[in-house]
Amino acid sequence: MIKITLPDNSVKEFESPITALDVAKSISEGLARNCLAASVNDQVWDLNREITQDCNIKLHTWNDAEGKHTFWHSSAHLMAAAVQALYPHAKFGIGPAIENGFYYDIDFGEGTVLSSEDFPAIEAKMQELVKSDIKIVRKDVSKDEALKYFSQRGETYKVELINELQDGTITFYESGNFIDLCKGPHLTDFSPIKAIKILSLAGAYWRGDEKRKQLTRLYAITFPKQKDLTEYLALLEEAKKRDHRKLGKELELFTFSQTVGQGLPLWLPKGAELRARLEQFLRKVQRDYGYEQVITPHIGNVELYKTSGHYQKYGQDSFRTITTPYEGEEYMLKPMNCPHHIEIYKAKPHSYKDLPVRYAEFGTVYRYEQSGELHGLTRVRSFTQDDAHIFCTPEQLKDEFCKVIDIVLYIFKTLKFDNFTAQISLRDPSNKEKYIGSDEIWEKAQQAIIEASAERGLNTITEIGEAAFYGPKLDFMVKDAIGRKWQLGTIQVDYNLPERFNLEYIGADNQKHRPIMIHRAPFGSMERFVAVLIEHTAGIFPLWLTPEQFIVLPISEKYEQYSHNVLASLAKYDLRGSIDERNEKTGKKIRDAEVSKVPYMLIVGEKEESQGLVSVRKHGEGDLGTMPLADFAALVNNEIALELGQSK
Amino acid sequence: MIKITLPDNSVKEFESPITALDVAKSISEGLARNCLAASVNDQVWDLNREITQDCNIKLHTWNDAEGKHTFWHSSAHLMAAAVQALYPHAKFGIGPAIENGFYYDIDFGEGTVLSSEDFPAIEAKMQELVKSDIKIVRKDVSKDEALKYFSQRGETYKVELINELQDGTITFYESGNFIDLCKGPHLTDFSPIKAIKILSLAGAYWRGDEKRKQLTRLYAITFPKQKDLTEYLALLEEAKKRDHRKLGKELELFTFSQTVGQGLPLWLPKGAELRARLEQFLRKVQRDYGYEQVITPHIGNVELYKTSGHYQKYGQDSFRTITTPYEGEEYMLKPMNCPHHIEIYKAKPHSYKDLPVRYAEFGTVYRYEQSGELHGLTRVRSFTQDDAHIFCTPEQLKDEFCKVIDIVLYIFKTLKFDNFTAQISLRDPSNKEKYIGSDEIWEKAQQAIIEASAERGLNTITEIGEAAFYGPKLDFMVKDAIGRKWQLGTIQVDYNLPERFNLEYIGADNQKHRPIMIHRAPFGSMERFVAVLIEHTAGIFPLWLTPEQFIVLPISEKYEQYSHNVLASLAKYDLRGSIDERNEKTGKKIRDAEVSKVPYMLIVGEKEESQGLVSVRKHGEGDLGTMPLADFAALVNNEIALELGQSK
Repeated sequence: MIKITLPDNSVKEFESPITALDVAKSISEGLARNCLAASVNDQVWDLNREITQDCNIKLHTWNDAEGKHTFWHSSAHLMAAAVQALYPHAKFGIGPAIENGFYYDIDFGEGTVLSSEDFPAIEAKMQELVKSDIKIVRKDVSKDEALKYFSQRGETYKVELINELQDGTITFYESGNFIDLCKGPHLTDFSPIKAIKILSLAGAYWRGDEKRKQLTRLYAITFPKQKDLTEYLALLEEAKKRDHRKLGKELELFTFSQTVGQGLPLWLPKGAELRARLEQFLRKVQRDYGYEQVITPHIGNVELYKTSGHYQKYGQDSFRTITTPYEGEEYMLKPMNCPHHIEIYKAKPHSYKDLPVRYAEFGTVYRYEQSGELHGLTRVRSFTQDDAHIFCTPEQLKDEFCKVIDIVLYIFKTLKFDNFTAQISLRDPSNKEKYIGSDEIWEKAQQAIIEASAERGLNTITEIGEAAFYGPKLDFMVKDAIGRKWQLGTIQVDYNLPERFNLEYIGADNQKHRPIMIHRAPFGSMERFVAVLIEHTAGIFPLWLTPEQFIVLPISEKYEQYSHNVLASLAKYDLRGSIDERNEKTGKKIRDAEVSKVPYMLIVGEKEESQGLVSVRKHGEGDLGTMPLADFAALVNNEIALELGQSK
Repeated sequence: MIKITLPDNSVKEFESPITALDVAKSISEGLARNCLAASVNDQVWDLNREITQDCNIKLHTWNDAEGKHTFWHSSAHLMAAAVQALYPHAKFGIGPAIENGFYYDIDFGEGTVLSSEDFPAIEAKMQELVKSDIKIVRKDVSKDEALKYFSQRGETYKVELINELQDGTITFYESGNFIDLCKGPHLTDFSPIKAIKILSLAGAYWRGDEKRKQLTRLYAITFPKQKDLTEYLALLEEAKKRDHRKLGKELELFTFSQTVGQGLPLWLPKGAELRARLEQFLRKVQRDYGYEQVITPHIGNVELYKTSGHYQKYGQDSFRTITTPYEGEEYMLKPMNCPHHIEIYKAKPHSYKDLPVRYAEFGTVYRYEQSGELHGLTRVRSFTQDDAHIFCTPEQLKDEFCKVIDIVLYIFKTLKFDNFTAQISLRDPSNKEKYIGSDEIWEKAQQAIIEASAERGLNTITEIGEAAFYGPKLDFMVKDAIGRKWQLGTIQVDYNLPERFNLEYIGADNQKHRPIMIHRAPFGSMERFVAVLIEHTAGIFPLWLTPEQFIVLPISEKYEQYSHNVLASLAKYDLRGSIDERNEKTGKKIRDAEVSKVPYMLIVGEKEESQGLVSVRKHGEGDLGTMPLADFAALVNNEIALELGQSK
């Protein structure tokens, strides 16, 4: 008899031998039909792999990551089988599941250059194989056997991989004529794969080594339902339109220069202004909450980061240190702003009466990423955190946490991120030695976060064991307008740095005490936030933030001078816009302005000039009538006050 | 007969042998009395050194740098002679004239520790030697003779210096019992030295090498009139009070941390706010003048600076380059912002219709300075330039130059730097190959600067040959409130970088043309400007800039809550202040506020609270009466508009 423990801790007994599929069937036939894989004692297994001992089992469907991963991993084999059938000379590299779909690296041989025109044939062959009811079979093989099989077939890449494996650990997966070196897990057959799409191809060096041969990487995705694929392709299409790299270029917000360096953003005038407005917005909110701005250099002595522990963490894989020509000093581009703010805290003694102290800085940090990892503004080598560090007493922690949550919620509301969740990360109580700080202090801090989140009505999930070693934290995830998830702001409690830097304040008892630090960045970084904002809004920013609030449309050349007067007058009300001076009909100018989504059109002609007026059209709403400039300015500024929640 | 050519090109003939003093006497006895040294064919000589050939002569008095230098150099010998008389075991290092006075490095021997209490005795001995009518006599000596003399006296430092000299080039200067190894020049005797002050002492390693012995460096100054000394000491006293390092600490504007790194300023909250206001002020001015803000990273690939030539200029003696763990890249902390702005210019094609383009950035640059050279905010290792680069056509150059001058003049006026001069630096026409760019283009640019300066009525001096190799420039020097000169803003024309980076625009002729660049920084850098502003204003900043515009003085504890309401209400009018919550009498609070020079005091009690008023006192002017908060805010904001020249 084999005892199977299910996730709800119920135990079932089975006659040996059994499989996870048997367990699923014993619960319900419907469940068994939807099962794709199973975790057996926390390892993901094929559903039909024989279970010979008592164990814990968790069944996986399309709705969990392990289910999808197995589905796509088998789909990669399916694609390879199709390619092998169509291109008998192809040699195979590796073919893993990825976050969305899977790929396979393939050497099609000299003379065969694949293009997207070849995709339909491969897709058709995959469909055909799905229908032919092929089983996927796992086999243990000896190293000799494995080498012999792939050598005979001229599969040099597989041979190279096998040579690096230990005898006795090697498994093949066989599906019809296609046999792959693979650890699994896999579906029992291809039948669940109902929708197939090959997405793109790219060159990929064998084993990521640019000195080795470049293979063809085929990216694809599959789904258990056609509807899922249709939705996914529509999402891809929409995401492409919203891609911040594309819109960033079109809107002239930022650029990159290979000469300055990869992953180092250059903010163009419109982007720099937009960023300045975001910074100004947050600066004001933070000032209202008692934050003080500071400014620190982008480098620091390496000793500072040895004390903080950042050198140990970032030193090896980040930008190398900077030495001086004399005096033997060694500096680092700062990977974090905290040590600098700590030095400011230490610049004078503190009493409990001064606390909390809140130092804010738009502080730029530098982290080396390999060039292949870089992606627009979301993965860069230098980025500016909307950073702040709060130094407080244990008693103040909860209140400070609440206030930081309030700032985050205000930002999300103002920028219309209505759909978000928060993850509370706590320590693993069965593994206390991993964490710094006493039981008492952890209890208090965790309780503070849980209570603060509850009081603010956050939609939270709690993850045990996900806390940093230095303290518990709260991370915010937003869903954008097309349903994609982005991690944004973070709030972290820190007991570690106050300890490492020996921070102190004098308490009411006249004794020295250790303050607690809170790290927080509601945007995360200016770069990442602007990227997410572009993708969320498709580049249609709120009125207070948009680079161009209005466009003046003179009905003929005669009114160009007046148009310039309008521009200059509105600048005095802090409004920004431009003039369409093209020699076009007014109807055409209006249509073009509607397409470019400028919030307001100001049409000016004889009547407007003679009376100092503008005729106002609002994007998507149409004519608002003729009014004096001051009225238009009031209209816009009221709308902005509403957006910012500052109306009276 | 010896022909002497004077600076006005007049020629006088003399019977040989003669001295410069004879030449002076031949002009007037009065001049001869005031002469301290003379330039003979551009080398500064003793007045009594024999002239044997035709030559050019320029006579030097206290009013020129060479005269002062000779005066102080002889004073250093005088001090050494006095020390030798008082401390027979003292051994002498070197004793040069410096910018203000002179010093001598002396080894007083084991057991003798000098303090400022010993200064009067040395000064008295110097006075005595002045009165004893000792002549200063120059002597050529052989190396053997020189070694013998100083070896016998145990003057090991002098012996070391002599060993490094060539035989035949060695001179002694003898003044009574004191003989020094010295190239001169010197006074003929000590009689012009009428006022003497030993200022301070410091440790100084022999030859600046920390592994060698530390000598005692005695700093002193002398003058030809007692009145000059009195004035100088008063200036020193005033300068000490205004020292930006001292005031910066007292006002909590900035600090340095040895742990972050020497010469890397940390801006404390009040300093960061002050700097933000200065930036905001300049940002607004620049926006009105059509500048666009950009933001660039603090590093760039080393190839960028090889193209610009900055690597060749700064690479060797600055912070070393930053390498990456993989991919073999090499970056530099940016020594200049220009290459980054050039890359932004190059991000899209330009037509003559778009020009001028003006990119502005508060851009931080990094330059290594040896730690001994660092000084508060005026000599740092990282500083933020109020930088901008204008890309324009040759035709636009003069107009752009005028506009930049207008910005500089507006800043000087607003910040009450009423006393300034401008230096026009032109190329040396006899040395054209030193400069890049055609004759035509230089003529045009130099003419543009000269005309622009004249049109704006600048008080200029013109220096031929002081242009940079890449173009002519205009530098501004201000005199502060106590008469010290500071170099601030600069405007430079540049033909070099457009060439090196192959910059282009399409002209009206549809052909490619090379734009001209203007580099300009009206403040120079935020660090230096804030330092100068502190020393100029003694920390009493204009109302628009000062960290604390008002202080609320509740007449008793009862009105503390109302005081906080006043603070919060005035914050809505963008006013900033604090509350004096001490348990003190109102009279005392007013007196203390007067001492701390807060511009406005707001006294609140029963009547003010019940009617929502404040009683306003202005610093130095007294009672302005009782008024509603809105009136007080209007009063302050009007005063600020006046300061900024923005009143209607």
